[in-house]
Amino acid sequence: MEYRKLKDQDEDGNGDVDVIESQKALSVTNVPTLGDTTIDWSKWKLKIIVVVALMLLMSSQSILIVWSKRNGKYEYSITTTNFMVENLKCGLSLLALARIWRSEGVTKDNRLSTTFDEVIVYPIPALLYLVKNLLQYHILQHLDAPGYQILRNLNIISTGILNRIILKKKLSNMQWVALIQLCIGCVITQLKTNSDDVFQTPVQGWVMAIVMALLSGFAGVYTEAIMKKRPSRNINVQNFCLYIFGMVFNAVAIVTQDFDAVMNKGFFYGYSFITVLMILNQALSGLAVSMVMKYADNIVKVYSTSVAMLFTALVSSYIFRFNLSLAFIAGTINVILCVYQHAVGKQDDSIPALPKFAQCKGSHPSPHHSSMMILNRWS
Amino acid sequence: MEYRKLKDQDEDGNGDVDVIESQKALSVTNVPTLGDTTIDWSKWKLKIIVVVALMLLMSSQSILIVWSKRNGKYEYSITTTNFMVENLKCGLSLLALARIWRSEGVTKDNRLSTTFDEVIVYPIPALLYLVKNLLQYHILQHLDAPGYQILRNLNIISTGILNRIILKKKLSNMQWVALIQLCIGCVITQLKTNSDDVFQTPVQGWVMAIVMALLSGFAGVYTEAIMKKRPSRNINVQNFCLYIFGMVFNAVAIVTQDFDAVMNKGFFYGYSFITVLMILNQALSGLAVSMVMKYADNIVKVYSTSVAMLFTALVSSYIFRFNLSLAFIAGTINVILCVYQHAVGKQDDSIPALPKFAQCKGSHPSPHHSSMMILNRWS
Repeated sequence: MEYRKLKDQDEDGNGDVDVIESQKALSVTNVPTLGDTTIDWSKWKLKIIVVVALMLLMSSQSILIVWSKRNGKYEYSITTTNFMVENLKCGLSLLALARIWRSEGVTKDNRLSTTFDEVIVYPIPALLYLVKNLLQYHILQHLDAPGYQILRNLNIISTGILNRIILKKKLSNMQWVALIQLCIGCVITQLKTNSDDVFQTPVQGWVMAIVMALLSGFAGVYTEAIMKKRPSRNINVQNFCLYIFGMVFNAVAIVTQDFDAVMNKGFFYGYSFITVLMILNQALSGLAVSMVMKYADNIVKVYSTSVAMLFTALVSSYIFRFNLSLAFIAGTINVILCVYQHAVGKQDDSIPALPKFAQCKGSHPSPHHSSMMILNRWS
Repeated sequence: MEYRKLKDQDEDGNGDVDVIESQKALSVTNVPTLGDTTIDWSKWKLKIIVVVALMLLMSSQSILIVWSKRNGKYEYSITTTNFMVENLKCGLSLLALARIWRSEGVTKDNRLSTTFDEVIVYPIPALLYLVKNLLQYHILQHLDAPGYQILRNLNIISTGILNRIILKKKLSNMQWVALIQLCIGCVITQLKTNSDDVFQTPVQGWVMAIVMALLSGFAGVYTEAIMKKRPSRNINVQNFCLYIFGMVFNAVAIVTQDFDAVMNKGFFYGYSFITVLMILNQALSGLAVSMVMKYADNIVKVYSTSVAMLFTALVSSYIFRFNLSLAFIAGTINVILCVYQHAVGKQDDSIPALPKFAQCKGSHPSPHHSSMMILNRWS
């Protein structure tokens, strides 16, 4: 709870955007994005629609979280809402599976029974998020909340690096430039009068911020690897396995963090209509993120997260009536240009013109093969 | 003088960078840059060395201007130093010409005698800078100095647009993105706590800022057109014609603005060793800029100006011992990435892969032809 309280002290409208992080901290899910990029417009159109829908879902998520406060406080236990989100995702995955079984019958790809080899990798993302969440409490002892908010953008870079190292996916030079500029754009949108305090961060703070960025990047990359290892495996089965461990870890979190509160006041104490909407929204975004992980990739996720964050701030500024800063506007334009740059910058300009087809093959050398490599290392 | 005084009130270290603007306001010259870009590395190396040298010259320029103050004031008249700069440039051009005449003899290309048709275009850049300078006094009635500093970055965009419209030079989509991000990067480096005041700018302020950006862009583009109209004409002759009109306009400025001061205290009142160094530095930068205009282009100029500005701030922060802000660092990284992006982003990615040679030809369709068009329209 401590972390969320710290965030709330941040009176700035943008600050509220981050509350989402604590809500999701123990959840297995992540966030959607733009840009896998081959300039194939029919494929692109669909992707854009899906990603925009995801971003809207995500943007409203943060606003719902803020609205779920009463008298400036969260009356419900966050661990219980996280648990309910994982629960709902499990339920929805099972429901979808049941429909598929009825229409297509049970096959090798959509059956729920699994092998130890397949299932052993699924707790790992949940575990990584758990470690990250625990670290989050410690990092705030070395770093104030606005500073942490700025350093969290290192996620963007770490995802790019881990994507390259672990999944062996290459970005073109132009796409690397776009990724760094995306990170800068996000930092800029979050600039406040006290942002320079980040330079006072002690070494431990920096180390922890980098470790957290790597953990978060690794969890994302690892989830992608899991989803893509068995491309023909039904996504609902994969989701079910992912979320069932999410449920377990969240149950542990309830017991260790909020046991007394839940025992004394009841599990659903403080729930309102908005809380229910928020849970529904988080569950749907979670499922959408899984789709991005299976059918697109982590870089798409990073771009969507960033754009969704801006979208949230825009909507918040309208709802909560505060003025957007020049820094926010400049950063937003930068981020939007980065999305374009990532999309059209696929051709690696450092190598002489290859036929487009050959190049695209080169940029994504068999992701399934490399996801298998990493999964085999862990299982 | 009013304008420089306003600038000086801006206590921030970056503020001093802009003092250069008023120093140069009536001068015909402009500034150097990176990036004409065909990835021909031997050509590039030389260009980079020249541009880096220019940037160093420019960076030290602003610092010399600050150092030329005594007790926080400029004791000399700025109009007289501007006049001396134009004088020195004329002298150096003549000296260079004399050497060429001795070694190569007088030819059609290096003779000083000229036609009315050739010479009539040369006062125009000086006139444009004069109008811009006059407007500068008015704009500061509608806009505070930090706001003006931010809006001045519109120069970057206007130069790109006028470069396209008047000189008919195409930038690739990626280069356009880079140019907009360069503008954003520059704005970001200049962000201060009160930057949001720029939103309070009245409509007249915006209109004047845009008009000034267009004037400044047009002066640059027009100078490039003049320099490139006769590619074989010796650059020293062209410089001489350019600077002789600069001298005339600066003489007018002395008479209209500082006549009493010069009459009472003398022309060289308040000059110090630093003032002399400053004049020398400005003259050399001016000549270097002419070279950039003749052998590279305005976009190169815009990039160099931006990088030089950052360089100045870096050096100033060391000399005057102030801390760089997070905004400055973020903006600087953005600007550096834009330089790279402009350089490698030449291939237009919106059109399918052409052989490199054909593409380069396509991107710069006969600048001489188009410069002739604009000059003929004016002469």
